[in-house]
Amino acid sequence: MSFISINEIDQLINEDVPYIDLTSWVLGVREQPGKIAYFTREDAVVCGTEEVSSVFERLHIKTESMVASGQKVSAGDELITGTGRAEDLHKAWKVGQNILDNCSGIATKTRKMVDMAKSVSPNTAILTTRKGFPGTKALAIKSIMSGGAMPHRLGLSETILIFKQHLNFISGFDGLLKKMPELKAECCEKKIIVEATTLAQAIDLCQAGVDGIQFDKLTVEDLSAAVKQLRSEFPGVVLLAAGGINETNISAYASTQVNGIVTTCLYSAKPIDVGVRINQ
Amino acid sequence: MSFISINEIDQLINEDVPYIDLTSWVLGVREQPGKIAYFTREDAVVCGTEEVSSVFERLHIKTESMVASGQKVSAGDELITGTGRAEDLHKAWKVGQNILDNCSGIATKTRKMVDMAKSVSPNTAILTTRKGFPGTKALAIKSIMSGGAMPHRLGLSETILIFKQHLNFISGFDGLLKKMPELKAECCEKKIIVEATTLAQAIDLCQAGVDGIQFDKLTVEDLSAAVKQLRSEFPGVVLLAAGGINETNISAYASTQVNGIVTTCLYSAKPIDVGVRINQ
Amino acid sequence: MSFISINEIDQLINEDVPYIDLTSWVLGVREQPGKIAYFTREDAVVCGTEEVSSVFERLHIKTESMVASGQKVSAGDELITGTGRAEDLHKAWKVGQNILDNCSGIATKTRKMVDMAKSVSPNTAILTTRKGFPGTKALAIKSIMSGGAMPHRLGLSETILIFKQHLNFISGFDGLLKKMPELKAECCEKKIIVEATTLAQAIDLCQAGVDGIQFDKLTVEDLSAAVKQLRSEFPGVVLLAAGGINETNISAYASTQVNGIVTTCLYSAKPIDVGVRINQ
Amino acid sequence: MSFISINEIDQLINEDVPYIDLTSWVLGVREQPGKIAYFTREDAVVCGTEEVSSVFERLHIKTESMVASGQKVSAGDELITGTGRAEDLHKAWKVGQNILDNCSGIATKTRKMVDMAKSVSPNTAILTTRKGFPGTKALAIKSIMSGGAMPHRLGLSETILIFKQHLNFISGFDGLLKKMPELKAECCEKKIIVEATTLAQAIDLCQAGVDGIQFDKLTVEDLSAAVKQLRSEFPGVVLLAAGGINETNISAYASTQVNGIVTTCLYSAKPIDVGVRINQ
Amino acid sequence: MSFISINEIDQLINEDVPYIDLTSWVLGVREQPGKIAYFTREDAVVCGTEEVSSVFERLHIKTESMVASGQKVSAGDELITGTGRAEDLHKAWKVGQNILDNCSGIATKTRKMVDMAKSVSPNTAILTTRKGFPGTKALAIKSIMSGGAMPHRLGLSETILIFKQHLNFISGFDGLLKKMPELKAECCEKKIIVEATTLAQAIDLCQAGVDGIQFDKLTVEDLSAAVKQLRSEFPGVVLLAAGGINETNISAYASTQVNGIVTTCLYSAKPIDVGVRINQ
Amino acid sequence: MSFISINEIDQLINEDVPYIDLTSWVLGVREQPGKIAYFTREDAVVCGTEEVSSVFERLHIKTESMVASGQKVSAGDELITGTGRAEDLHKAWKVGQNILDNCSGIATKTRKMVDMAKSVSPNTAILTTRKGFPGTKALAIKSIMSGGAMPHRLGLSETILIFKQHLNFISGFDGLLKKMPELKAECCEKKIIVEATTLAQAIDLCQAGVDGIQFDKLTVEDLSAAVKQLRSEFPGVVLLAAGGINETNISAYASTQVNGIVTTCLYSAKPIDVGVRINQ
Repeated sequence: MSFISINEIDQLINEDVPYIDLTSWVLGVREQPGKIAYFTREDAVVCGTEEVSSVFERLHIKTESMVASGQKVSAGDELITGTGRAEDLHKAWKVGQNILDNCSGIATKTRKMVDMAKSVSPNTAILTTRKGFPGTKALAIKSIMSGGAMPHRLGLSETILIFKQHLNFISGFDGLLKKMPELKAECCEKKIIVEATTLAQAIDLCQAGVDGIQFDKLTVEDLSAAVKQLRSEFPGVVLLAAGGINETNISAYASTQVNGIVTTCLYSAKPIDVGVRINQ
Repeated sequence: MSFISINEIDQLINEDVPYIDLTSWVLGVREQPGKIAYFTREDAVVCGTEEVSSVFERLHIKTESMVASGQKVSAGDELITGTGRAEDLHKAWKVGQNILDNCSGIATKTRKMVDMAKSVSPNTAILTTRKGFPGTKALAIKSIMSGGAMPHRLGLSETILIFKQHLNFISGFDGLLKKMPELKAECCEKKIIVEATTLAQAIDLCQAGVDGIQFDKLTVEDLSAAVKQLRSEFPGVVLLAAGGINETNISAYASTQVNGIVTTCLYSAKPIDVGVRINQ
Repeated sequence: MSFISINEIDQLINEDVPYIDLTSWVLGVREQPGKIAYFTREDAVVCGTEEVSSVFERLHIKTESMVASGQKVSAGDELITGTGRAEDLHKAWKVGQNILDNCSGIATKTRKMVDMAKSVSPNTAILTTRKGFPGTKALAIKSIMSGGAMPHRLGLSETILIFKQHLNFISGFDGLLKKMPELKAECCEKKIIVEATTLAQAIDLCQAGVDGIQFDKLTVEDLSAAVKQLRSEFPGVVLLAAGGINETNISAYASTQVNGIVTTCLYSAKPIDVGVRINQ
Repeated sequence: MSFISINEIDQLINEDVPYIDLTSWVLGVREQPGKIAYFTREDAVVCGTEEVSSVFERLHIKTESMVASGQKVSAGDELITGTGRAEDLHKAWKVGQNILDNCSGIATKTRKMVDMAKSVSPNTAILTTRKGFPGTKALAIKSIMSGGAMPHRLGLSETILIFKQHLNFISGFDGLLKKMPELKAECCEKKIIVEATTLAQAIDLCQAGVDGIQFDKLTVEDLSAAVKQLRSEFPGVVLLAAGGINETNISAYASTQVNGIVTTCLYSAKPIDVGVRINQ
Repeated sequence: MSFISINEIDQLINEDVPYIDLTSWVLGVREQPGKIAYFTREDAVVCGTEEVSSVFERLHIKTESMVASGQKVSAGDELITGTGRAEDLHKAWKVGQNILDNCSGIATKTRKMVDMAKSVSPNTAILTTRKGFPGTKALAIKSIMSGGAMPHRLGLSETILIFKQHLNFISGFDGLLKKMPELKAECCEKKIIVEATTLAQAIDLCQAGVDGIQFDKLTVEDLSAAVKQLRSEFPGVVLLAAGGINETNISAYASTQVNGIVTTCLYSAKPIDVGVRINQ
Repeated sequence: MSFISINEIDQLINEDVPYIDLTSWVLGVREQPGKIAYFTREDAVVCGTEEVSSVFERLHIKTESMVASGQKVSAGDELITGTGRAEDLHKAWKVGQNILDNCSGIATKTRKMVDMAKSVSPNTAILTTRKGFPGTKALAIKSIMSGGAMPHRLGLSETILIFKQHLNFISGFDGLLKKMPELKAECCEKKIIVEATTLAQAIDLCQAGVDGIQFDKLTVEDLSAAVKQLRSEFPGVVLLAAGGINETNISAYASTQVNGIVTTCLYSAKPIDVGVRINQ
């Protein structure tokens, strides 16, 4: 269940250790057998152990024990341990630590926010945007899925989400309403979702046959009213809330009973405090 | 001054747009000429415009204006603008936005923390650890440098920093003291820096001829006392502070007059709020 | 609108010309200026000229004229022409020809089959499976889209299509019907589509709330009957036909008025006969 | 005997499964142990099992049985089977199937055409051009070799084949005849082969010392006459036939007793019908 | 006529400058415009300027003048010059210098040895083995070709050269003689060349129809005798000399009038002394 | 302790064997089990066996015995042996041989030069420049380290070495002396080293607080005098000698007691004569 390829694992190792661990080399710390253990200093949902195990494999370190991504761990628990040559343990050290603390940080924050939302509205999905740090997508997606969220869209090529920035090229909202039947025929397997900022827009779109509305930056009150009205008139339309939703207001947004809450904030979770022991 | 290669730019684009922007395709938004403008909604130190310009180039978008990385911008300012085919502008949109908001977020936080430290101790350098999110090193390093910090170590192969995890394989501290003359001869061009957690250790190391001490998690008081004593006895030795230093305590640590403050916290800066206008 | 990256263009060139065109080298055919012209010997829908233009660019050949992908051309028409050094023209020759004749072959066959289907049922979409030759996906997808078809699914990560092979692990059909409400909540933005081989299965699925049925290998008669009954009872459900549909029977399948026809046969189109002139 | 590298295997998997099999994920089909079996629904020469075994290895699926590339199989036979986690079996499914059905299709067609030619002229080699689908060379070459053919030229850098397109830059045929002694000295290890379209050209070339003639698009009658005359006068010269040779006329061309028949048609073979069973 | 791809150019730059030129950065040497000029301190055949021009292009340095690979230059001559930002000139410096001095070193040594051989035997080709430093093949091949030699074999896949190491698996020499007719039919476009260490072996091979003999480590006297006898009996067979041939004995080996001399020694030429001026 | 990644190993194999060993294929030398043994014909310090073992692994050859890099071997000793299919042994043959003979050549020359220097001045380090053949850095660095030398600088991003080419942009030497305090603060963890060509320059630099002087092309006499004077006045400053130092003069330069000798000449060592046995 590693989300990254051998080539990417090698690149991560190479980024930190382009040639050698010079310190180990000059200290003569090379051939002795040793142990490495990653442990958490706080309760967490673990993520990334499968990738660290791949780092170990590339460095001829034997994985001795491991907690699978998505599992809960308590402060003090070991996440993954291995045995190998001292030099290789030092090469693996920070590469592994950076995967574990960052990915587990996202998974833990995700689990917490998913639980907050689900306790208020069990059927509301927590969805993440495409706004992560460039180059982190595979690990970030694994992390949010390990915490119970789902990606909103992985990229632009398989889903349809229409923004104002598109409408500027097709005579705006009216242009879209005219095109709707054709879109629905051509993309019969996809849901056609459109961003709206008012209830009035949403009603027009629903009447034109849209499959979903993504409300951007509505207040909880306005959203709540919109959901009530649209559910009764257009029960099959998916309703999403996006824009500025985070730990402080997710419960309130979930209480509107939207089908999904779209958020970016999971990607910038604080890393978990992961310690590393290396010894003979 | 782009920090990433053409191949990496293509990978970032491909990650978000593996084939097409399906929405633009089915809406017929392709050949019209259009404009794209990225602007900031908050004061910031900009970073990443050179890379966005490379994204533009790969998508045949002409860069029309651009603020260089490292410059200060005010809320409302445009960071980079371009002109091209509507389809290509939509492909560039989020790739560019993710570079700008994340990198500028780090640069802005860095600038702020560097200024806080320098106002107390102008000669103290702000240095960043190797603990970023896997896969982000090139952009993260550019970001902290654009904000006025320097990388502590880019990797393991060109610098020497000795931790307890190394000492476990060479009979601990005593083993290290014995090896010191040989290390200094073999690595005559490098400074040999050792992590210490007490003043007593530091004194032993200085007497053995070490070039620098990295104090880990000392209180400001203990650190301040250590700096005073070591400076008078071993004036040439570099003194670094690391471990839990962030916006809340950097001024206090800088007041100890250490040569450098080593921190991880710059890598998890909140992204800047960057808006995107796309229109005809 | 090139679908492949610079790195992939370089790989295509390198595959055919790892070092030099030995023949040009030993003949001394290198520095003379020359012209290259690709022309079609049959009527076709062109595809791949943007990629050939990229090949030209990498070999310092100037593109002089070019017909965009998706356009119709007649026997004798030039597709793309360029000028450069004789050696470079010879390096480009076969790389460019292989792109044009294969991609245009698929686009032309696609256009023909799309027209056949649309003339019978204008709202039926022609969709292609994931069963192409390994390594050709980007060019194959461009080719079928240039001919008027759409990809059914680009990969496994953004769409949901449930096969018998999945059901074997969840207690079969009954297991699926029980899970349906949960699936719909978790994947609220996606249509949930299930493969069925009988009308009875389809009715059960529709009652459970599925968004689409993909009928596998039904006869035209059975499919026609199924569409009529399901449309009247479950008007919002998408109905797809798959399995053995090709040029000989697509009109018949289209006459059932399914929403989409899913086919693999477009990927193995006969290449168009493309000629190449190279001279001074 | 896999013809493609680990990196390419990972790319093929990634092309179809960039992150996860979403369907397996949401159905909870992940950790159960399961079996996968690929079988053929028609008699065939198998090709690609070694590469599928590499796909299995990358996905931690254990190969349980396997028929080597180049072997004949009968309808119903299993080609390769494996055991692993249900999620991984679903990830491997289509990647493996696309390799097997396309490669075996080429190998099977090749075997048939080679047998047709050899039954008429046992010493005539069947050779394939460089005109395959871009990006498929390694698998295509493996496929035709598994069926008993040989590649004509793998690329431009190690062989010499002179076309009219070269002659346009060296004063045509006469220019070539003059250069022949120098070519033969410089490339003493290679056979110098020239395309000809008439017997008269061939005779001139043979008199100048060429090592081989590739006749382009001669009728069987003309070719037969040419072979007879050239064999008696220039017994050491290799004679090849190219241009429009396929299943319908290969026996006739083989009957001319040329040394080799050069064809493109093997690359566009119909895929073999390969079925896949996945279950507990 | 660059022999390496953009991706490889980027890798060469990245190898020397993974992030920045730290020295230029801390000195504030960045935005000033400047000039770079590479010049030779000895007479040479230049090689690699096209690749350095590609390095320049990737670093936004404008190539101002350039001598093409293969040209002769005198001590003091400039090889390539450019203008750009001071920081970029410093990044290019050593990458470009390493290409020029190493490649020109090989080209110069090659030119000298080719001239030595040709002055004795104008029709003897100088051919290089596959024994270069791993990872240098493209540049090494360009270098020897720029000096007037040709590669013997670029790799194993397109040529046939039979060694004792092969014969160990087919019942030795006798096994080979039996297989010869089949080999010649199957590989009708290739010359079949076999390594021999005695005249007796060579005669057996010629009688069996081999196309070429590669004599390994014969003395000049033995080789001379062998060439005389074989030329008179088997005039069409190519005769090559290999094994320990270098600058000290190439004239003697050429005097035997073999068709080709196969040598490794060109790959380890002393680099040319290339100087670099960088200034405002 | 392999210095190159799986992807690079695959590239080395692919460079020599893009598809197959054609010779083995046509001889039918494929499935027989066989043995391969690399042995040295001269005394040497071995280097590269770990990488050859990786080549073996990628080709399914089992490593049977192996001497670690850095070990001394005598003429006749085996370096690494393996068992596998005959075809795979032939594919590995030259790839492995090229690694072993080139890397061991450098390691052996390095060991010799290090021993020469150390016998005169045990504390003088032997350091290598960045001037190797493009594309060979990882293997070259491994080779010199296996022989007892250290890299001077692996690249430009982690060390500071100031040349005249930098000074041209900051008002020359005087500009540098003014900037020195700022440099030392900003780069407190690095030694600041400056190239000097006279003792007078060196004294100015030392007074300004530089950490090291790299003397370029001084005579042994001048260098010796400079070292004596600087050591007594500035005992903490590192003194390096560079420029034209090789086997003929390294003892003389070492006798000056500089801290380090910087040389390029190790990279162009003559390859060791490594033989290869392949048999059943």
